[in-house]
Amino acid sequence: MSAVGTLRAGDVMTPLSRLVTQAQIDAYAEASGDHNPIHVDEEFARSVGLPGTIAHGMLDLGILTDAVARWAGGSDRVASIGCRFSKPLLAGDTITCTGTVVEVDEEPGIAVLSLEAVSDRGDRVLTHGRAEIRLDRSRS
Amino acid sequence: MSAVGTLRAGDVMTPLSRLVTQAQIDAYAEASGDHNPIHVDEEFARSVGLPGTIAHGMLDLGILTDAVARWAGGSDRVASIGCRFSKPLLAGDTITCTGTVVEVDEEPGIAVLSLEAVSDRGDRVLTHGRAEIRLDRSRS
Repeated sequence: MSAVGTLRAGDVMTPLSRLVTQAQIDAYAEASGDHNPIHVDEEFARSVGLPGTIAHGMLDLGILTDAVARWAGGSDRVASIGCRFSKPLLAGDTITCTGTVVEVDEEPGIAVLSLEAVSDRGDRVLTHGRAEIRLDRSRS
Repeated sequence: MSAVGTLRAGDVMTPLSRLVTQAQIDAYAEASGDHNPIHVDEEFARSVGLPGTIAHGMLDLGILTDAVARWAGGSDRVASIGCRFSKPLLAGDTITCTGTVVEVDEEPGIAVLSLEAVSDRGDRVLTHGRAEIRLDRSRS
């Protein structure tokens, strides 16, 4: 059983760290249809002033959502998600997602998390993150 | 040039409709690592009361983000995105994303959009959608 049943404001989400490789970015480009060269062509990325290729913001947000889903006990627990795309995540960076419960509403059975994600080079990649998780699957 | 330079509250985003096939859901499962059988195994999906396999919520949100990015003139324009996952989108459904500008802040150069996505069977798939778009790339 997940910790969701007994959540309180101030509870900390289990952090999730994940290395994001160029192969994963390529797979995401394929799945999403977004083949912008800043994601898949290192030479192009450098030509526009980036230190290298960058992950799609939605790939970063997907990892943040996965962090919430794993901690909450399944993706069906995630009622909503959102964030600001603040800094790019580079291919080869490790992203670490953290979160804290800021509010628990027993009716309608929702806990609100504040979230962010940082890279191992110290960049705050995703900020102003927010998710609602369902405390009780049967009401979803 | 996109319409972003002259946005006003009440402006309507160009809608985006997209058929979501099982092949796309399979590709997203591969890219995300989320192989939950409700997404990829029709028999299993029916056994838990669904009419068929369903798209990952993050795939739906990715399409909504793409709708915003295309209309705004590029994914680098999308400063933030979020939504509620309200109803599942089934494989073979067409999702239609719509949005309206609700606020334009010249400083710091952000337009706020209200968004939603519906399926061709009439389900409100994504609700409470919200995005911020950057009016001026140079300030991002």
